[in-house]
Amino acid sequence: MSAHSDDIERLIQLLAKLPGLGPRSAKRAALHLLKKREQLENLSAALAQAAAKVKNCAICGNLDTIDPCAICQDPKRDRNSLCVVEEVADLWALERSNIFKGVYHVLGGTLSALDGMGPEQLRIQQLIRRVKETPPKEIIMAMNATVSGQTTAYYVSDQLAEFNIPLTRLAHGVPVGGELDYLDEGTLLAAFAARRSA
Amino acid sequence: MSAHSDDIERLIQLLAKLPGLGPRSAKRAALHLLKKREQLENLSAALAQAAAKVKNCAICGNLDTIDPCAICQDPKRDRNSLCVVEEVADLWALERSNIFKGVYHVLGGTLSALDGMGPEQLRIQQLIRRVKETPPKEIIMAMNATVSGQTTAYYVSDQLAEFNIPLTRLAHGVPVGGELDYLDEGTLLAAFAARRSA
Repeated sequence: MSAHSDDIERLIQLLAKLPGLGPRSAKRAALHLLKKREQLENLSAALAQAAAKVKNCAICGNLDTIDPCAICQDPKRDRNSLCVVEEVADLWALERSNIFKGVYHVLGGTLSALDGMGPEQLRIQQLIRRVKETPPKEIIMAMNATVSGQTTAYYVSDQLAEFNIPLTRLAHGVPVGGELDYLDEGTLLAAFAARRSA
Repeated sequence: MSAHSDDIERLIQLLAKLPGLGPRSAKRAALHLLKKREQLENLSAALAQAAAKVKNCAICGNLDTIDPCAICQDPKRDRNSLCVVEEVADLWALERSNIFKGVYHVLGGTLSALDGMGPEQLRIQQLIRRVKETPPKEIIMAMNATVSGQTTAYYVSDQLAEFNIPLTRLAHGVPVGGELDYLDEGTLLAAFAARRSA
């Protein structure tokens, strides 16, 4: 006989599915919430609110309570510069750094035969349609510097080749603050190949 | 301007308050949930369910959907053996190990002047009343082997002295599978002091 009821067990199991929480930390989180009832109710309400209101932007795929999202609606954004990213998290990371003033397109993942992610599972057709309808002056491929990210970037670039729009990708090299001793050969090679006059 | 709306921000902040999740992993968890709508809705429902149904057992302080809790209601439990623990998590840990067939009393924390936890904040008066009304044959002090846990055990033992019921505490010593080289002096001292004939 279990010491806790099915309702608590179910809550623990759902919490354990969150990235970063395992069965043990999920139990700790559940106990924490059951002890602090206000947090429990607030979190429940916030999740219900998010489930009801947050949706993917029909234009770029960002998550927001308005559709089109705040970025796509913002008149100050430069629609001539389109940045293609893998996930919403990447969009948020770029927004946090405050370096890009254009608009985004979120693919929703990378091509991966093993995970059953083909071109149809990603928002590639939407990207092609979008570029055809309102062609930007530059498309920045800001995919992760991983094998699947670069494969996806290559595939997407290929699909966009017909539009003759300048495609760029993020520079590879030594990360700011990085020590050469700790870098892999691939990064060092990229940094050497792309060296510039000092 | 933030890339995500207030609703998402609020969800992230509430998730970040869970033990084991920081601001960054809370964001990852929020994005994970927003991508998997079914999990988001299930978690929201499970939290609402828990908020509505789970309460502390009036007898022992355990969390359950029924009151008295399943353990206190179980006729197979030995009411002559009462185990006092700090938190519900400790009760669950003992239940998981399946070694104790008596009933519990959850104090709800430890005495801690710094955190403003005095005897009134713990379920000590309930314990005294319970012992007075239905005296068990043995009371096991299963507090954590920490300073605050042992202080609390000492205080509770003192309060229960008048009832002349045998009080025991968990043995201290080398944990099973433990290597002497990695143990602190306190544990080694306790293990030596409580050595038994082989």
